[in-house]
Amino acid sequence: MTTRADGRANDELRPITITRNWLDHAAGSVLIEFGRTRVLCAASASEGVPRWRKGSGLGWVTAEYAMLPASTNTRSDRESVKGRIGGRTHEISRLVGRSLRAVIDYQALGENTIQIDCDVLQADGGTRTASITGAYVALADAVAKLGVPKALTGSVAAVSVGIIDGVPRLDLPYEEDVRAETDMNIVMTGDGKFVEVQGTAEGAAFDRSELDALLALGEKGCADLTRRQQQALAQELPR
Amino acid sequence: MTTRADGRANDELRPITITRNWLDHAAGSVLIEFGRTRVLCAASASEGVPRWRKGSGLGWVTAEYAMLPASTNTRSDRESVKGRIGGRTHEISRLVGRSLRAVIDYQALGENTIQIDCDVLQADGGTRTASITGAYVALADAVAKLGVPKALTGSVAAVSVGIIDGVPRLDLPYEEDVRAETDMNIVMTGDGKFVEVQGTAEGAAFDRSELDALLALGEKGCADLTRRQQQALAQELPR
Amino acid sequence: MTTRADGRANDELRPITITRNWLDHAAGSVLIEFGRTRVLCAASASEGVPRWRKGSGLGWVTAEYAMLPASTNTRSDRESVKGRIGGRTHEISRLVGRSLRAVIDYQALGENTIQIDCDVLQADGGTRTASITGAYVALADAVAKLGVPKALTGSVAAVSVGIIDGVPRLDLPYEEDVRAETDMNIVMTGDGKFVEVQGTAEGAAFDRSELDALLALGEKGCADLTRRQQQALAQELPR
Amino acid sequence: MTTRADGRANDELRPITITRNWLDHAAGSVLIEFGRTRVLCAASASEGVPRWRKGSGLGWVTAEYAMLPASTNTRSDRESVKGRIGGRTHEISRLVGRSLRAVIDYQALGENTIQIDCDVLQADGGTRTASITGAYVALADAVAKLGVPKALTGSVAAVSVGIIDGVPRLDLPYEEDVRAETDMNIVMTGDGKFVEVQGTAEGAAFDRSELDALLALGEKGCADLTRRQQQALAQELPR
Amino acid sequence: MTTRADGRANDELRPITITRNWLDHAAGSVLIEFGRTRVLCAASASEGVPRWRKGSGLGWVTAEYAMLPASTNTRSDRESVKGRIGGRTHEISRLVGRSLRAVIDYQALGENTIQIDCDVLQADGGTRTASITGAYVALADAVAKLGVPKALTGSVAAVSVGIIDGVPRLDLPYEEDVRAETDMNIVMTGDGKFVEVQGTAEGAAFDRSELDALLALGEKGCADLTRRQQQALAQELPR
Amino acid sequence: MTTRADGRANDELRPITITRNWLDHAAGSVLIEFGRTRVLCAASASEGVPRWRKGSGLGWVTAEYAMLPASTNTRSDRESVKGRIGGRTHEISRLVGRSLRAVIDYQALGENTIQIDCDVLQADGGTRTASITGAYVALADAVAKLGVPKALTGSVAAVSVGIIDGVPRLDLPYEEDVRAETDMNIVMTGDGKFVEVQGTAEGAAFDRSELDALLALGEKGCADLTRRQQQALAQELPR
Repeated sequence: MTTRADGRANDELRPITITRNWLDHAAGSVLIEFGRTRVLCAASASEGVPRWRKGSGLGWVTAEYAMLPASTNTRSDRESVKGRIGGRTHEISRLVGRSLRAVIDYQALGENTIQIDCDVLQADGGTRTASITGAYVALADAVAKLGVPKALTGSVAAVSVGIIDGVPRLDLPYEEDVRAETDMNIVMTGDGKFVEVQGTAEGAAFDRSELDALLALGEKGCADLTRRQQQALAQELPR
Repeated sequence: MTTRADGRANDELRPITITRNWLDHAAGSVLIEFGRTRVLCAASASEGVPRWRKGSGLGWVTAEYAMLPASTNTRSDRESVKGRIGGRTHEISRLVGRSLRAVIDYQALGENTIQIDCDVLQADGGTRTASITGAYVALADAVAKLGVPKALTGSVAAVSVGIIDGVPRLDLPYEEDVRAETDMNIVMTGDGKFVEVQGTAEGAAFDRSELDALLALGEKGCADLTRRQQQALAQELPR
Repeated sequence: MTTRADGRANDELRPITITRNWLDHAAGSVLIEFGRTRVLCAASASEGVPRWRKGSGLGWVTAEYAMLPASTNTRSDRESVKGRIGGRTHEISRLVGRSLRAVIDYQALGENTIQIDCDVLQADGGTRTASITGAYVALADAVAKLGVPKALTGSVAAVSVGIIDGVPRLDLPYEEDVRAETDMNIVMTGDGKFVEVQGTAEGAAFDRSELDALLALGEKGCADLTRRQQQALAQELPR
Repeated sequence: MTTRADGRANDELRPITITRNWLDHAAGSVLIEFGRTRVLCAASASEGVPRWRKGSGLGWVTAEYAMLPASTNTRSDRESVKGRIGGRTHEISRLVGRSLRAVIDYQALGENTIQIDCDVLQADGGTRTASITGAYVALADAVAKLGVPKALTGSVAAVSVGIIDGVPRLDLPYEEDVRAETDMNIVMTGDGKFVEVQGTAEGAAFDRSELDALLALGEKGCADLTRRQQQALAQELPR
Repeated sequence: MTTRADGRANDELRPITITRNWLDHAAGSVLIEFGRTRVLCAASASEGVPRWRKGSGLGWVTAEYAMLPASTNTRSDRESVKGRIGGRTHEISRLVGRSLRAVIDYQALGENTIQIDCDVLQADGGTRTASITGAYVALADAVAKLGVPKALTGSVAAVSVGIIDGVPRLDLPYEEDVRAETDMNIVMTGDGKFVEVQGTAEGAAFDRSELDALLALGEKGCADLTRRQQQALAQELPR
Repeated sequence: MTTRADGRANDELRPITITRNWLDHAAGSVLIEFGRTRVLCAASASEGVPRWRKGSGLGWVTAEYAMLPASTNTRSDRESVKGRIGGRTHEISRLVGRSLRAVIDYQALGENTIQIDCDVLQADGGTRTASITGAYVALADAVAKLGVPKALTGSVAAVSVGIIDGVPRLDLPYEEDVRAETDMNIVMTGDGKFVEVQGTAEGAAFDRSELDALLALGEKGCADLTRRQQQALAQELPR
């Protein structure tokens, strides 16, 4: 029987920690940890919307994702110093934004913009799924603070799944991620529907039964994360 | 019963045209058309590999995707003039590269690099799937010309599927794409395995049965496209 | 007696092909071929003018030129990827814009902007002269479509000339271009006046008699191209 | 008598917290807090030095400073998204680097590079002085881990001082900083010598006696901070 | 006794030349020379202020500093060609702007902007202090020309000081600058108050008595420069 | 009879001043004045050549042109601040480089690079022609200093000509330049051959007889400038 290096069952999440109100200035902010992966998620609210949306009565939500240079195993160069944002950063920023917009009622938000920032302080796999999961909680705090809780029509959480040595596993840390033959990120609403499904054959292509196994695992993981989000939000807001 | 604006059945591809050897200089080149979507795919070969791969005996394949300014309904600004590449462009370039690398035997390719360029001359939905499908044919011609046909371990094709007014449809043109509630791009090998699955809820989240219907439609579409690729490659190379 | 590799007389153009309406979206579009040089010229119209011209009642015409990476003998890097536009690209974009503006009546155009895009699909010498010659035809179709045919006060065409092995030649392909001692691009109106004259000594400086010979050759070439433009525009618009 | 909003004496530091080993990957890392100002300082070591120093047998230390978008009162745009680094960021990065290099013995460091990253997670005044003070501790842990503790010839700490309503004050939070007539940042070694003195008249120019008062206050503040650094480093390294 | 290479006393300035009205277009312009250091300072006036200041009734003064490529011992690359401005350039531009703003009455200036440009034509140490000293004279001419001489509340001048071989010296040329253990730039008003004090330990940290010696030397140098500025401005404006 | 605002005859140059050795560091340097147009030309020599030329035994000459912000009537933004070089700057830099390379014997130069910098201190029309004319003198001083005077095979000078109110005129200042119907820049060798001919119809297209008149005027102007260059170089080098 295959055992995971950290002793987890194949369908078990890493220890999840959600610390609300980690920052003083943002309308909502969360430090989320998936094991050793640590992401600071902030939701900053401002009046008004981008030009193309003015006068529509509708709000807007957008997101930016980035990694601190020392967050990775080997230090990464800063994108501000390189003067350009890489493809991976762009891709994840877009994914986070789309995922959160799936549960937004723009009418209820009114002509306000919420800017999500997900900054990875430490990376150990699953930074994009931790970002989405944490950003939802920051967003929930922000809309509450703005007095428009109805701007959220549901919740959203995300998890990674993959096949390692032929076995499907949930919530991959870095060392499993690099060994995965197939890697999938699944974003789901709190009521069990899919928002995003992104599966990639890293090594060999995968067949339909493998895909089905990964989807089932992702459904379980997102349901678990939804409960953690609910527990975190049920607590009285610290500070 | 729902009818499509162009009279197609829901599981039917648009007219597909694959013109090989459209360019004189590149090792392989294809003008591919999915209906009114028209993409010029070139595979340029050069000796040597990027620095991080030198001395490994292994080759490399990478891809860039771009749209001509006048390819879209309303003219788009040039990314060279803006001085930066947008997130969508980055994302698709990476997708095309990953998809093709799924069928490459780097050992057989030897220390050579093949650079794929997919330039959209006219856009009417499905530009990324046409790019992948066309780029495979250009790549096949390139490895043949290089004398290393074994560098390809299989074929790869891609198609978009989506749910419009509750009905799953294959190969969406622009006017369907913007109306789709859910949109999915599926990349498969010629022997029916998945390389990439990217589904996005544009409006409402989708459930597992909708996901299954889209996957089935994508499987059919990729199989059809694989046949078209084979037919195109079976013909004697023009010129 | 010197003979040209492609058997042409020294004062003879390469085979010229002008295909109108190559694109569906742009107000005017032309695929022009000077031998193996192939340029896609699009004229996109939009209401309004740049800020510095607002309220003047006058229109504006501007142009951008670019080469696809696989258009050249050896693949060229994308300027969007490099993050900056090279001097040659800038220079040619400015030349194309100036050349077309020479035959524009801004008053008749009204406060509309026409953006010309010349994208080189395949390069074999003379890409800037093919661009100007093709762009004029696209522009003519665009002003007709806009219902302001009087916005054009005449026609414009361009050709390259050069001295190879002491002999003046018309319309140089790449292999002649690199061997030319002197290289000149000539832009003329349909009624035989000069719009631009750009001559460069690539090797030795040239004297007045050589300059005169090149000018005469350019006058002939532009007159020939003017006839091809007229023939192309005389045909009923395809589609 | 003037009282400070947070009840501190004029020559008193804010509560200082130094948490070592906040990150798993960097050779040294510190989360330092000056009141609500919170900076993550990492010291990443790598073999080799920049090209201009190769073969010299000498090491190198360099630093980068940046603020997270949500660290400020009102969200700031990302410099990576803007595509360029602002003058203030450049200036502080250079200051941090110079300050740390003042206590480095390049010979003892050998041909290794230590890259300091100071990322402001929350800003409430004094981010550059907190960065220097925290980075020194991270650097001390890094050289210890590298086995070259002698690469540090002393310690370095920094503090801000300013004149508010005519009264010199130590360690200004944001609300005092914006009201200061004169603002000074002082960097000192652990044995009481100056490394950097940067004083700026924000409103009226200042005379020599005011300058002397600020220098005295800075000397006291740096001495206090030196003690905090020593206490932090005296503890056994967590984790 | 230590002697300086150019025979000056330790508290003596290099030969100072101030040529007003060196340019025809700018409202004020000065070619200033500190020995072989030669900086062209221009003050360009324009109506209006940056957006964030509109409607305030207050003016604005800002500055940019740059070095010509051939101004330095070994040619430096152009920052326009590199596509980004270096940290040192940013830092000095900001210093020059702050220094001049210290003597501006924004109310008296009215909603006008004065843009200072300091371009180093030849560099031999002290380019930032020559820039500030010369820019003040250009600014004085500009406000006189604008008819708002009261917009200047005083004068400002700057000088470098440093410790070389243990001896404090005034106004360092390049060859002394590179050898200095401690280097300080001092900006003062004409009535002897400090605007900026920037001291840096290049080699060993410096103690309070050394700092005091440098400050005294700077005070003397700025007083001397103030007299030169007054003499230059007392002359009738040439041309 | 038309008279010019400055009283010159139509075929007369503005007052030309050539000051050699204006800078201390560059191998050759010239301040050249065409009336109020003032350009600082520097020729910096360095050992070695660009990578693509290494080992060929041949040298290289390249040029950069730029305008100081306050050189123009209304202040222009810095290209370093904008982060990109404009088309006009690129175009002129390339023209200056090509013009000088026309009189270089790369073999005699050996594997050395000469970098020409032409910085416009004040602009009043003809900045590119003054740049070429001055840069030649700086280059002559540089090759003499390098001990390879034979690296120059001849001299080169440039002048602008144009048709204003139907009359051809030599060496246009700004106020004539903006009114010119046709504008031409002519670069010639000292022995009367053409290096570059660039004519542009600013308003109406021009016919062959107008072109001939402009060429004749340019030939005279370049011959006059050649004499001025010879006189300047005949003098003993100052300083």
